[in-house]
Amino acid sequence: MMDSVRRLPRLSFGADGIAQGVRPLPSEVAVALSFNGSTQAVMMATPSDLTDFAYGFALTEGIATPDQIDSVEAVETCNGIDLQIWVPDAAQSRLAARRRTMAGPVGCGLCGIDSIEQAMRRVPHVAPSSFRMSPEQVNAAVASLTAQQPLHDITRAAHCAAYWTPAGIFAAREDVGRHNALDKLVGHVVRNGRLQGAVILTSRVSIDMVQKVATLGAPVLIAVSAPTATAVDLAEEAGITLIALARSDRFEVFSHSDRLTKAAHVR
Amino acid sequence: MMDSVRRLPRLSFGADGIAQGVRPLPSEVAVALSFNGSTQAVMMATPSDLTDFAYGFALTEGIATPDQIDSVEAVETCNGIDLQIWVPDAAQSRLAARRRTMAGPVGCGLCGIDSIEQAMRRVPHVAPSSFRMSPEQVNAAVASLTAQQPLHDITRAAHCAAYWTPAGIFAAREDVGRHNALDKLVGHVVRNGRLQGAVILTSRVSIDMVQKVATLGAPVLIAVSAPTATAVDLAEEAGITLIALARSDRFEVFSHSDRLTKAAHVR
Repeated sequence: MMDSVRRLPRLSFGADGIAQGVRPLPSEVAVALSFNGSTQAVMMATPSDLTDFAYGFALTEGIATPDQIDSVEAVETCNGIDLQIWVPDAAQSRLAARRRTMAGPVGCGLCGIDSIEQAMRRVPHVAPSSFRMSPEQVNAAVASLTAQQPLHDITRAAHCAAYWTPAGIFAAREDVGRHNALDKLVGHVVRNGRLQGAVILTSRVSIDMVQKVATLGAPVLIAVSAPTATAVDLAEEAGITLIALARSDRFEVFSHSDRLTKAAHVR
Repeated sequence: MMDSVRRLPRLSFGADGIAQGVRPLPSEVAVALSFNGSTQAVMMATPSDLTDFAYGFALTEGIATPDQIDSVEAVETCNGIDLQIWVPDAAQSRLAARRRTMAGPVGCGLCGIDSIEQAMRRVPHVAPSSFRMSPEQVNAAVASLTAQQPLHDITRAAHCAAYWTPAGIFAAREDVGRHNALDKLVGHVVRNGRLQGAVILTSRVSIDMVQKVATLGAPVLIAVSAPTATAVDLAEEAGITLIALARSDRFEVFSHSDRLTKAAHVR
């Protein structure tokens, strides 16, 4: 399979003058997500963890649950990767429905979204649970993220999505696209049993990131960067605790703060 | 029209304890881009500069040039904005062609992209010109960007795209999405005459950002963050000088460094 990093020549200009050199940069490959032979979406992605990507994308975009996927195969083509996903007839009908919505005044958007209604889709409410995090656990989870980003360490140009459980970081996935990193993580988590835990993102939180986390069913979403106001609205509605602007020593909580122990003791 | 910023309550956790407060966050609204009554894409965007957005999206996605657009109207709906763009019959046929490509095994991806070929589409080579920048001008252009980001100053969660000419920053546009910020900038530039200049981005440079800049015809692209390797490939092919990892005192050049004065004097 293709490499995730390529080393390219560059000139650096600085106070010391001009110097020739090489910088490692992340690959970005067109990955077609094909279901039963039909392309559903094409994503520019880092060519790694593609089976996780297939499972995660299928779940978070509402196409197929993990148990509905018969097989996944990544086929390299001359200018990209065809990620061939096969689903049984039951899921096939959902694909057909999705296709029908695009048949009239054909639209699009991200991943086949052709209407405002679809972009603002409702999401499942996370199941009730006793999952809680202390502020110290949140700080430690964010701090531990830095050890999980080998692609970013090399290229300074990759997003990371990680899954935290009380036992520590369960898994982390990287990609040049923040949506892809999250889909890869979701795919890995559902393929290995859905544990109760928190999703941690290095990226900003827009509404589509909350939609994906809600589909996974994770009760807590922690982001290093800031959320949009609309992402906060959806997290509130979905029952997700949204933590953002998180550093190793501080963070802010925008919804469902009751999952944080000590949140009751507000001065 | 809707506000670009909303102030939401939040709890902050830090060394000083827990405090209630309010944080301004950027709005994120579903904007349907409709051409002659058919939705072509839905983008989650900041609800500002929507006419620029319409012109820029139409141009960079190969749907219509500015002179082909008869009218643009932003109609607020209950859950988003319908950006209604009307084009004459000539451009309409291009829309139909685009629609046909989605009619068979319907696919999608970002903005109606339904095949690897479309995602990796060739772009025009920038026209020959005498446009050059000195390293001092690059540094000054990057430094001047900080004064152009009122939405980011308030929310810490917006991307900026700006256009620089030897007279200084010609225009800047912000959005929660980096593609939208660039489309808004492109729309503004083409509606006000295409000057020879450089596009400056606060964001990372993926291949689709280079595709959009090539469609505008800008000879230089400067980014604060890093590019992907594939973006460098396309900039090389399109004749664009790609400068990245740019700070106010240093930067790196990945393609066509001959547009930088002094680049010949490499030690």
